[in-house]
Amino acid sequence: MTVPDLLGQQPTGSPSDPTDRPAASIFDKVERFFEPGGDYQKVNEADLYPYFRAIEVSEGSRAVMNGREVIMAGSNNYLGLTNDPRVREAAKAAVDKYGTGCTGSRFLNGTLDLHLELEERLARFMRKEACVLFSTGYMTNQGLLQSLAGRGDVIFSDKDNHACILAGQQVSAAETVRYRHNDVEHLRTFLERISNERPDAGKLIATDGVFSMSGTIARVPELVGLAQEFGAALFLDDAHAVGVIGDGGRGSASVFGLEDEVALTTGTFSKSFSSLGGFAVGDETVIEYVRHTASTHMFSASMPPSAVATVLACLDILETEPERLERLAEISDTMRDGFRSLGFDVWASQTPIIPVVIGEMYRCFAFWKDLLEAGVFANAVVPPAVPQGQSLMRTSYMATHTDEELDRVLSAFETVGLQHGIIAPGGKPGPAMTPSGA
Amino acid sequence: MTVPDLLGQQPTGSPSDPTDRPAASIFDKVERFFEPGGDYQKVNEADLYPYFRAIEVSEGSRAVMNGREVIMAGSNNYLGLTNDPRVREAAKAAVDKYGTGCTGSRFLNGTLDLHLELEERLARFMRKEACVLFSTGYMTNQGLLQSLAGRGDVIFSDKDNHACILAGQQVSAAETVRYRHNDVEHLRTFLERISNERPDAGKLIATDGVFSMSGTIARVPELVGLAQEFGAALFLDDAHAVGVIGDGGRGSASVFGLEDEVALTTGTFSKSFSSLGGFAVGDETVIEYVRHTASTHMFSASMPPSAVATVLACLDILETEPERLERLAEISDTMRDGFRSLGFDVWASQTPIIPVVIGEMYRCFAFWKDLLEAGVFANAVVPPAVPQGQSLMRTSYMATHTDEELDRVLSAFETVGLQHGIIAPGGKPGPAMTPSGA
Repeated sequence: MTVPDLLGQQPTGSPSDPTDRPAASIFDKVERFFEPGGDYQKVNEADLYPYFRAIEVSEGSRAVMNGREVIMAGSNNYLGLTNDPRVREAAKAAVDKYGTGCTGSRFLNGTLDLHLELEERLARFMRKEACVLFSTGYMTNQGLLQSLAGRGDVIFSDKDNHACILAGQQVSAAETVRYRHNDVEHLRTFLERISNERPDAGKLIATDGVFSMSGTIARVPELVGLAQEFGAALFLDDAHAVGVIGDGGRGSASVFGLEDEVALTTGTFSKSFSSLGGFAVGDETVIEYVRHTASTHMFSASMPPSAVATVLACLDILETEPERLERLAEISDTMRDGFRSLGFDVWASQTPIIPVVIGEMYRCFAFWKDLLEAGVFANAVVPPAVPQGQSLMRTSYMATHTDEELDRVLSAFETVGLQHGIIAPGGKPGPAMTPSGA
Repeated sequence: MTVPDLLGQQPTGSPSDPTDRPAASIFDKVERFFEPGGDYQKVNEADLYPYFRAIEVSEGSRAVMNGREVIMAGSNNYLGLTNDPRVREAAKAAVDKYGTGCTGSRFLNGTLDLHLELEERLARFMRKEACVLFSTGYMTNQGLLQSLAGRGDVIFSDKDNHACILAGQQVSAAETVRYRHNDVEHLRTFLERISNERPDAGKLIATDGVFSMSGTIARVPELVGLAQEFGAALFLDDAHAVGVIGDGGRGSASVFGLEDEVALTTGTFSKSFSSLGGFAVGDETVIEYVRHTASTHMFSASMPPSAVATVLACLDILETEPERLERLAEISDTMRDGFRSLGFDVWASQTPIIPVVIGEMYRCFAFWKDLLEAGVFANAVVPPAVPQGQSLMRTSYMATHTDEELDRVLSAFETVGLQHGIIAPGGKPGPAMTPSGA
């Protein structure tokens, strides 16, 4: 498939002439979104739309989409446990014992002994005093920031942090300053300024432990140093790190042996733990305070029994089968090397998240479709999630991918990459990746 | 149990002397929360703390807490389906077919055919063009407001709306004006003022369809009238209404035959649908826009297969067994009459949510404990969730409560109510409810 006609067109989205409209309506923005000539309509008409595609069968590293089996290289199922028989049995046993839902918040009638067990287990696993569960990872980070960063406080936030940290900043009464991605010198200038101007401000440094698009690890040692120097608390969102990297899968601080220096760590259950939900760990009084003041915890129904039991079963496997993490790390190295040998740019990935840079947005959509036709599913990521001209295929791997599946992924990328000029024969960048070829 | 010593004490929570502190810390607020003499410490020491209590066994209308069976009169399990064998089987079958989790967002790799099926079913059930799922009810309302109410728009919000609508207001770029609870004349003054001052502002009226503490239904006909008069869109949060009231359980607009006049309705799956998650229904383009712009939808993992299958099974039962809704309405009437006959104040409840006013916060905590000892679990609700001096026991009912269980609830309330002076013999308010007795 070629995409010259689409590449020449600029994204549109400007408001229509206000005189066209009979009266202001809250839904005017909806009409503009779908108007002829807009991104959405163009991509849809070209049948290049890569989002909201339905999966009919999901078997870990394989999935069926549109009646056809593909290799799943775009999931956060890092340990490959969503279909593990032990995990399935645990989920079903919880339905038998407790029913399908708790129909209430942890705060009121939605606390089961199972929730308390998981909190105890996770606190111990993460080597922290206490743990509090939330019903989604998104609500974990949002609730933590709203609860702990109040009026007069300042949140220092990496510009590439996940959307739910941004939401936390928005609902928090604290001020937020955003420092350049992973730029500790830029962070230092803000810490110095705030410390001078407002010595009474409480300070919280918030960062993804692993960045979800680039697969890079936060600069934890430098962040710890700055937190100590300026009396700030350090908060790591380890959604893509717990159950993935570090000692026994304990996350990004653990990679550097710095767990004790991190005040707050959060994680999610919708990745290595094959479920839905999230957690925060830290000192006991801090966690207890969050439990009583985080809106997303107090005013949202608790995790269903099967979701909790799923996490407990995955935690058992994580603790008893360390070879899964070893395999995951090995696969990640193999795939990074493989992509680079073919001539692809994979940025500075350090984890099972490996971005493959494609370039222009429309080309990335076309690449996505051709890759799917070649039997591999990965995720097309376009602006604003990445910079303009840096659209990419986000690939990610699981401990249960076989060598043969990984070979097929690389082979499909090679074929489609050559076809689109992303790479050239001999393991070099292709014409589409050089300024003259864009 | 008597509570005179606690009643004489005022809640505390003021900051400690700042000179005590070595330096500002983000966690100073945590120390203040737990400091000696504060509410938390006092209530905990008196063993009156009614929150986060663990349930060991949950069997619909019965639960086991601290090894003892109690009647559950404090759950949102309105249809009583969390333990229905058909619902359990559906949840388990989905684990077998799809695994325990989707490990990705709807947007990327977390869309199953099962999600699409539920969206289609709910749109049809709610008699609307389209439906979008979210992974919690909280994220549904937050995401909807963030998506649809943008810069230059105005949200008109009932002051008693749920916390997640407040969160939506905070993350939205729109301005919010809050009108007095269910006060349509107050709302009108705001609509008039904004329409005059800013004729180009898009307007969204946001209200709970059923208010979660009082059990009253929003004044939908008047709200529809105002929305039409001022060109505003009306948004109903029917978390406590869909599957509870209206034609076939279609919610608060349906009570008045006004579904067509409501632009947006949301619901939750953690109440009548025995699961976790939420949904929004409306016109197709509006819902499609929400799907592509709501942060809580795009950047959060999708509902696990078992959670989706649970909702589908509950929807089947809701559609084929209308007698459950009839029973629920009958029970609600019976219990309201029963409480009133005993001399309790149940406000203007119109639904299975029946508040029983107790008064002072500490007395409400003591009432909660004595009621539990009498074998009934309900929820103590204290300021700021209710006005000062209006602390209450929030009771709620399910279609599966037996007459005998309901009699025992009333009997326990009578005993504890007399003991605390909330009621007097002969079906009158007790001394604690009159100004001289407080």
